[in-house]
Amino acid sequence: MQRSKRDILERLNAGELIVGDGGMVLQLERRGYVKAGQWTPEAAVEHPEAVRQLHREFLRAGADVLQTFTFYCSEDKLELSGNVTNITGAQINEAACDLARAVADEGDALVAGCVSQTPCYLENRSEAVVKSLFKKQMQEFLKKDIDFFIAEFFRYAEEAAWAVEVLKTSGKTVGATMCISPHGDMDGLPPGDCAVRLVKAGADIVGVNCHLDPTACIQTVKLMREGLNQAGLKAHLMIQPLGCHTPECNLTGYISLPEYPFALECRTLTRWDVHKYAREAYEAGIRYIGGCCGFEAYHIRAISEELRTERGFLPPASDKHGLWGAALDMHTKPWVRARACREYWEHLLPASGRPKCPSMAKPADE
Amino acid sequence: MQRSKRDILERLNAGELIVGDGGMVLQLERRGYVKAGQWTPEAAVEHPEAVRQLHREFLRAGADVLQTFTFYCSEDKLELSGNVTNITGAQINEAACDLARAVADEGDALVAGCVSQTPCYLENRSEAVVKSLFKKQMQEFLKKDIDFFIAEFFRYAEEAAWAVEVLKTSGKTVGATMCISPHGDMDGLPPGDCAVRLVKAGADIVGVNCHLDPTACIQTVKLMREGLNQAGLKAHLMIQPLGCHTPECNLTGYISLPEYPFALECRTLTRWDVHKYAREAYEAGIRYIGGCCGFEAYHIRAISEELRTERGFLPPASDKHGLWGAALDMHTKPWVRARACREYWEHLLPASGRPKCPSMAKPADE
Amino acid sequence: MQRSKRDILERLNAGELIVGDGGMVLQLERRGYVKAGQWTPEAAVEHPEAVRQLHREFLRAGADVLQTFTFYCSEDKLELSGNVTNITGAQINEAACDLARAVADEGDALVAGCVSQTPCYLENRSEAVVKSLFKKQMQEFLKKDIDFFIAEFFRYAEEAAWAVEVLKTSGKTVGATMCISPHGDMDGLPPGDCAVRLVKAGADIVGVNCHLDPTACIQTVKLMREGLNQAGLKAHLMIQPLGCHTPECNLTGYISLPEYPFALECRTLTRWDVHKYAREAYEAGIRYIGGCCGFEAYHIRAISEELRTERGFLPPASDKHGLWGAALDMHTKPWVRARACREYWEHLLPASGRPKCPSMAKPADE
Amino acid sequence: MQRSKRDILERLNAGELIVGDGGMVLQLERRGYVKAGQWTPEAAVEHPEAVRQLHREFLRAGADVLQTFTFYCSEDKLELSGNVTNITGAQINEAACDLARAVADEGDALVAGCVSQTPCYLENRSEAVVKSLFKKQMQEFLKKDIDFFIAEFFRYAEEAAWAVEVLKTSGKTVGATMCISPHGDMDGLPPGDCAVRLVKAGADIVGVNCHLDPTACIQTVKLMREGLNQAGLKAHLMIQPLGCHTPECNLTGYISLPEYPFALECRTLTRWDVHKYAREAYEAGIRYIGGCCGFEAYHIRAISEELRTERGFLPPASDKHGLWGAALDMHTKPWVRARACREYWEHLLPASGRPKCPSMAKPADE
Repeated sequence: MQRSKRDILERLNAGELIVGDGGMVLQLERRGYVKAGQWTPEAAVEHPEAVRQLHREFLRAGADVLQTFTFYCSEDKLELSGNVTNITGAQINEAACDLARAVADEGDALVAGCVSQTPCYLENRSEAVVKSLFKKQMQEFLKKDIDFFIAEFFRYAEEAAWAVEVLKTSGKTVGATMCISPHGDMDGLPPGDCAVRLVKAGADIVGVNCHLDPTACIQTVKLMREGLNQAGLKAHLMIQPLGCHTPECNLTGYISLPEYPFALECRTLTRWDVHKYAREAYEAGIRYIGGCCGFEAYHIRAISEELRTERGFLPPASDKHGLWGAALDMHTKPWVRARACREYWEHLLPASGRPKCPSMAKPADE
Repeated sequence: MQRSKRDILERLNAGELIVGDGGMVLQLERRGYVKAGQWTPEAAVEHPEAVRQLHREFLRAGADVLQTFTFYCSEDKLELSGNVTNITGAQINEAACDLARAVADEGDALVAGCVSQTPCYLENRSEAVVKSLFKKQMQEFLKKDIDFFIAEFFRYAEEAAWAVEVLKTSGKTVGATMCISPHGDMDGLPPGDCAVRLVKAGADIVGVNCHLDPTACIQTVKLMREGLNQAGLKAHLMIQPLGCHTPECNLTGYISLPEYPFALECRTLTRWDVHKYAREAYEAGIRYIGGCCGFEAYHIRAISEELRTERGFLPPASDKHGLWGAALDMHTKPWVRARACREYWEHLLPASGRPKCPSMAKPADE
Repeated sequence: MQRSKRDILERLNAGELIVGDGGMVLQLERRGYVKAGQWTPEAAVEHPEAVRQLHREFLRAGADVLQTFTFYCSEDKLELSGNVTNITGAQINEAACDLARAVADEGDALVAGCVSQTPCYLENRSEAVVKSLFKKQMQEFLKKDIDFFIAEFFRYAEEAAWAVEVLKTSGKTVGATMCISPHGDMDGLPPGDCAVRLVKAGADIVGVNCHLDPTACIQTVKLMREGLNQAGLKAHLMIQPLGCHTPECNLTGYISLPEYPFALECRTLTRWDVHKYAREAYEAGIRYIGGCCGFEAYHIRAISEELRTERGFLPPASDKHGLWGAALDMHTKPWVRARACREYWEHLLPASGRPKCPSMAKPADE
Repeated sequence: MQRSKRDILERLNAGELIVGDGGMVLQLERRGYVKAGQWTPEAAVEHPEAVRQLHREFLRAGADVLQTFTFYCSEDKLELSGNVTNITGAQINEAACDLARAVADEGDALVAGCVSQTPCYLENRSEAVVKSLFKKQMQEFLKKDIDFFIAEFFRYAEEAAWAVEVLKTSGKTVGATMCISPHGDMDGLPPGDCAVRLVKAGADIVGVNCHLDPTACIQTVKLMREGLNQAGLKAHLMIQPLGCHTPECNLTGYISLPEYPFALECRTLTRWDVHKYAREAYEAGIRYIGGCCGFEAYHIRAISEELRTERGFLPPASDKHGLWGAALDMHTKPWVRARACREYWEHLLPASGRPKCPSMAKPADE
């Protein structure tokens, strides 16, 4: 397919909706390529076919952006993990860019080079050290063909702002997301102030990702928007929430749930939860809408399907999905045929099949 | 890797544990390659890379057998589905054999050619018509390099027995699984009698698959075993249950649940549920232990990990998984480190995060 | 009020519905007059006003029978309990008869003298010893003005039959209820055989009480009825189930639940659950319908209200209750007014307000 | 028993704990004497024995104060209810005083004359009209022997303050409770400001009652305390929460729950929930601790038992209750004996036995 000439900012400035991709590390853990606890992305080198396939699923589901599989791929984190002995961070970063690029070009997607929080930051909070880590990653990305940057999964606005400052030296567009709750970052800085700090550092797009469910994340992005408005600043808004229900969570998000990270199944969003989320995010003025951990291809497809009118088209993978379950209308059981409609799925309260389990847990940070 | 010379029966006769693979159609639906409601396997031709990757995940998770992606691939079903217009059943069956074979040979796995229930059977219950459908599929498989056959997902012992009779004409080993509950098949034939019928038809391995959770499936296989014992017959036992909790289900299994097929997330087994299942199945004397819809690679890995001592080795994907969560022991949060042990996960009662949802539903067939 | 001349058998033989009373010990425990664990009825002597008031509530709710407050009032049980030091069993039995009689005569109710299982039985299973205990209690009752006898809360058909045999020597009508599940008594005797044994011993009315919820109790009484039919015997059927939901329970009933006896609140039936129960019991041919532990006055009133047409009248306490919530139609909040109808309450799935609690427990006898 | 000479203020000033009584109307509705929807107290005249018995249960459970059964007993409310045709408000108010007094004197309890919100207030917000209603009630109370006043169940601080101003003209001690959430009264006045207003109006004791569960009510009283502190005012604090779990509730409290008022059983506090509540209320500095709707005698006994050391004695009804279930230690089942301890009950998560029901509802005022 011919590459679109328009970049991410051009599209957002034109009022277009950008559908983001879903979560890589949690899904690749389940597929057998990422180690939980460390969550490092060496699979980009070790098992490129697995990474490529997951990128492709998101592309088919309608993602306009593929993020490089470079989560936690700073030198300090890789070393700490002890997980990657004969592969360098540079190798992973470069391989990841190639993988994302190749799949993106199977369609019309953009590639975002991604950096995330560093262990170093908490150790010494040294601007020079942390920025040098981001600079190294950035330089590796710039050897490859990426379209813009995303600095994601930051718990501290300060570190996120440093990342943005480094990435802006490239001259490329920079998005920045924080994994924070409506209460603010881990220093207690409210979401509105975080957003202001990020935009002042140079971010073109700001928002939240991971750690909390769509309801909480939309609330946080709204607070960011209000903060920007009050400061007289402007930026595009993005959101990539957790694909799990986390109504009990506080500051540290789903990490604090007893189910993290190996028993989150019961909490997983259905595709219908995602329809609701996509609509609410859109109505909140957010125009970059994707997912993080727990968002699989069919969740991204649900974003694309909910917003098909606003966007003007359905994604390739909708060839294999009847809108609102329409393909059930030929089922042999009448009671299944009755489910081939929006009303059924929109009102369903799904049962857990686990009568001995509670419906809410006590977070460890309470 | 050098192909093992020993076939499935040789291994089972020697008392070896065979780890089966997981579910293809439900997972490929989520990845965007299979249409729910029809569930036909045209992706083997349309998107071979997606099928190949899923096979590979199961292989890495420890599967000793890869089943061809040929579910519902009889001519009558394909036609009914209206889903496959310019691809023939023969093309799919043959492509699927090649895909499974190629991935199986990346390790040391066997390939099972699979047939399943036909819409024809219920229309007229004509032995000649139904057998001719199975014969056609078998001949397509025999053009390729498969190791043995599995006739799976049968609701009627009669149709399953017909499939077995056809497949036995190949001279190859035949396994047969039914998607029935402890109450028996849809004609009311108890599991013990179903098993007797299948073994008399020539099945070397009998058991159940799909439709019900591990607890129900183990109970059904035990009833099959008792039936065989009482009839003085012998056969190996296999099990490939649903990867969802279905405590409310009756005869028709999870099809009757309100959550079928688009809101089953809350019911999904955790890997720890699978440890329990694998142990119980093993203790029930079952030696072919796998999964069906809902079983992803990490569920199959959990079978391999639970039975690592009995089997003598861990699968490749365990390189990316600490046993019982051991890899969490380096986490920065002390409360997450405390989860790096068997006791934690074995006793966890996971919350759904959905306080407005019930824990059990009313099946549609009640 | 003038006493009706017709006794219990006359009424039942005429096809009349008899509404039983509710549970005394659990309710008087909550009111501060009975000690849980021992459950002995010394309050009949110590606090007659409290017993009288509870009888009166059941009378006003429509009870046609008041059972004497003589549960566990055999000499051996009283002694074991260590709970009653300066009061004799005879004093309690006699006081209890007077209390029930006086309140019954405020309306048109009958008084049933009640005996229940004895600790002695399990110690030695001596017919002579156990029968002498029942004989002593019976003689005390016969000094007073009671209308008929009920032998209740028996776990063994043998002991229940002995009680019936003793009580029949009085020449009075005898009802007998067992606290058993559909699986049968603690010796494994099925409900049908239990019923046959009781009727052969002389019981005019047979059924179940306590230990399990309405659903299970109705099932057990149906099995009793079938047993009697098959044996060519006839008896009236009665039922006085537990006022709690016990779907997980087995042989030993709610005693085995973790919540017994001090955390049963969440399991308590609503009045609407009782409407459903009363209808189902009636449709099962049961004509003596009451309750046991957990049934308060408003539950008994719900029986009376559900079966008001069959019975021809509403009870006095319905002056203070709009049928199906009708009295809410003048509420100031529109959303409460909308609840003034049958449809609302019949379909309500009440929430527990306890998201950290499970919906089912593991019984201790599993 | 000899009447204590010390009045309520004397006791509170001396730092004594005052145990309040429980809820009358909800309990008498269940017993068949009060009509839900109207909730008027005509039973004081129609069925004095029922009111007397409930007072007595609270007294035996340790209540230091018996509130007159005069809820909603203003002329305008009685007329609106249409429930009381041949009895005057004066008759009810006077009969209720006599009943409370007589039972209080069976022990050493005080009698509080109670007034509550009037329908008039919302109609016209006329100070003169509303005050005249309270004045009439007060004069009826003053004909009888009451110890102090409580103005309770006010949703608006303004109306509550008017009630206090009227009652203070009697020269007696006045307590005032509002049925508000931590968000404040229905005019949006925060709890701290409500408390200030009440104390300035003359209230000696302020706090909350009804509508919300202990957790929410403690939070509201704390906010009242802070408000008083900031204003440099002093008052004793009281609390009489709802006996149901209401985690989802907002401003209008349990009225907005779908279960109100006829399906609240699942939400009812256990005695162990009350232990926790009593401790937390005490630690929050509240010294008048009782309950409202849903608090039965055994809940009040649990307050008395939790705070037995602080108070120096156990109530009469504890003769029929082993502390923390101690009386179970002689049970015949070992698994029940194991429950005769604090640890068991403190950690129990009680199951609802209702797997088809949710654990949280959507309030109607959301």
